[in-house]
Amino acid sequence: MDPIRIAIVGIGKIARDQHVPAIRGNSAFSLAATVSPHDAGLDGVPHHASLDDLLAQGPAVDAIALCTPPQVRYDLATQALTKGVHLFLEKPPGATLAEVEALKVQADKVGVSLFAAWHSRFAAGVAPARAWLAERKIEKVSIVWREDVRVWHPGQAWIWQPGGLGVFDPGINALSIVTHILPRPFFLKDATLVLPENRAAPIAADLSFRDTAGAAIHMDLDWRQTGPQSWDIVVDTDAGALKLAHGGAVLTLPSGTEHGEDVEYAGLYARFATLIRGGRSDVDTSPLRLVADAFLRGTRQTTQAFHD
Amino acid sequence: MDPIRIAIVGIGKIARDQHVPAIRGNSAFSLAATVSPHDAGLDGVPHHASLDDLLAQGPAVDAIALCTPPQVRYDLATQALTKGVHLFLEKPPGATLAEVEALKVQADKVGVSLFAAWHSRFAAGVAPARAWLAERKIEKVSIVWREDVRVWHPGQAWIWQPGGLGVFDPGINALSIVTHILPRPFFLKDATLVLPENRAAPIAADLSFRDTAGAAIHMDLDWRQTGPQSWDIVVDTDAGALKLAHGGAVLTLPSGTEHGEDVEYAGLYARFATLIRGGRSDVDTSPLRLVADAFLRGTRQTTQAFHD
Repeated sequence: MDPIRIAIVGIGKIARDQHVPAIRGNSAFSLAATVSPHDAGLDGVPHHASLDDLLAQGPAVDAIALCTPPQVRYDLATQALTKGVHLFLEKPPGATLAEVEALKVQADKVGVSLFAAWHSRFAAGVAPARAWLAERKIEKVSIVWREDVRVWHPGQAWIWQPGGLGVFDPGINALSIVTHILPRPFFLKDATLVLPENRAAPIAADLSFRDTAGAAIHMDLDWRQTGPQSWDIVVDTDAGALKLAHGGAVLTLPSGTEHGEDVEYAGLYARFATLIRGGRSDVDTSPLRLVADAFLRGTRQTTQAFHD
Repeated sequence: MDPIRIAIVGIGKIARDQHVPAIRGNSAFSLAATVSPHDAGLDGVPHHASLDDLLAQGPAVDAIALCTPPQVRYDLATQALTKGVHLFLEKPPGATLAEVEALKVQADKVGVSLFAAWHSRFAAGVAPARAWLAERKIEKVSIVWREDVRVWHPGQAWIWQPGGLGVFDPGINALSIVTHILPRPFFLKDATLVLPENRAAPIAADLSFRDTAGAAIHMDLDWRQTGPQSWDIVVDTDAGALKLAHGGAVLTLPSGTEHGEDVEYAGLYARFATLIRGGRSDVDTSPLRLVADAFLRGTRQTTQAFHD
């Protein structure tokens, strides 16, 4: 079978660190081109300044991975869909829920695969955690996602702008795991969002959710963590506690701890190839919906200014 | 056929002004009870202080209309669903999108009808507007929804609290019409929300949407309008302009103007009876999704304090 010729649009940090190695490590794909107005691209790979240029003059592509900030995602996505190209959307899949719904309709109409990629769902501990929890009674869930924004998002202005999600940019990774591993849907009961006085997006948030059987789910998000970072989920059940640490990579069950390798983007691209070969899409907006609910329903507090 | 025995939960202004007359005017229903902790109910109708009381001791009911503020809607809704009771949700159907999704799942499981009621969709001009627009090319849409909050929401503290939506409480009525009459989905491009410095919800908003064919949709929401009120939607098309005025009641087409009677709540209850008799649900969350997107994506401005 011929490899799927894929172009990466938006060749920033996440594309270089994750997408390029994952594509090069999967024989189902060949990296056909890169697109960015700001950047020189990669040695030996055709580069275009815009998606327009690529689609008009560039090498033929079967698929596109969109790695731009979410605020400009929709227009690029429709351009690609119009050309009948399969589409991989980095998380979050858009700046709004309605635009992602509109993309679903368009992808179905054109008959291409649309993939809303949630990389944390492919962390090593997530699939076994989901399997183990399927049989359990959930008593309580605690999510602690605390990191140093200066380390992980240095100088990323878009992330602080409306639509950039602020601390929910990493927080949505936790929500993508928890929506995937818990056996029941859950929804927001209460939220406090903490915004620096000079920024439009939260630097911290405290959220209380509840699942449909009444289990409490608490989430603590903070971008002001220095020293050790925390990306931990603890689920208390009738059969003991499950802990996912290091963003889902390390799973601890009552029976012991499993340390997995980092397989997130390899898993995403394997899934994308399966979707394309099978003529299917996978667009789960539930993590973004929970974030939108937090902005809709949450109380806001202002805190001191943040400077990079 | 026996009438559907229905109870109203939350017997405030909207229940007295609209639900009671609509139920009494429809022979498919009989008003079996009212529920409110704050209020004495109606002459000659059994009254309970809580839904718990009604379900435990009250007269048997087949259906419930939930007219409480959205922040307390979910718990009451699940109580009712657990008892196998059909459910009518006043707009907005919940304080968050995820809780409405959870209610859908529960209603399907229990096998009862769930109806997310959007009363403005039943305004006299809306159905003919939808039919007329189905054939047209949409060029531009303008929504102007300006009213005096002191007249329409006197002393309603909940409407200014997180989850109460502020000026989107009336604005969502416009969105419920526009999502219904336009032939294509649309999504937010940009929004400014204006919040009084002493309130948690917006008093005004300016929103730009676009439909999937590129037509611009502009929305102007303001709660500070004194004098004549505006609830108008103008759709420019290749066959001339359509105007819905007075919240959807008055339709003007290039061929002339039609003044309809107020049939909104009569229409809602006719629809609810049809859903129950047919064993179906109708839960369209697209208006609330657009509002959540506005809170997620919008820029906030602070304005002078608002006092009732």
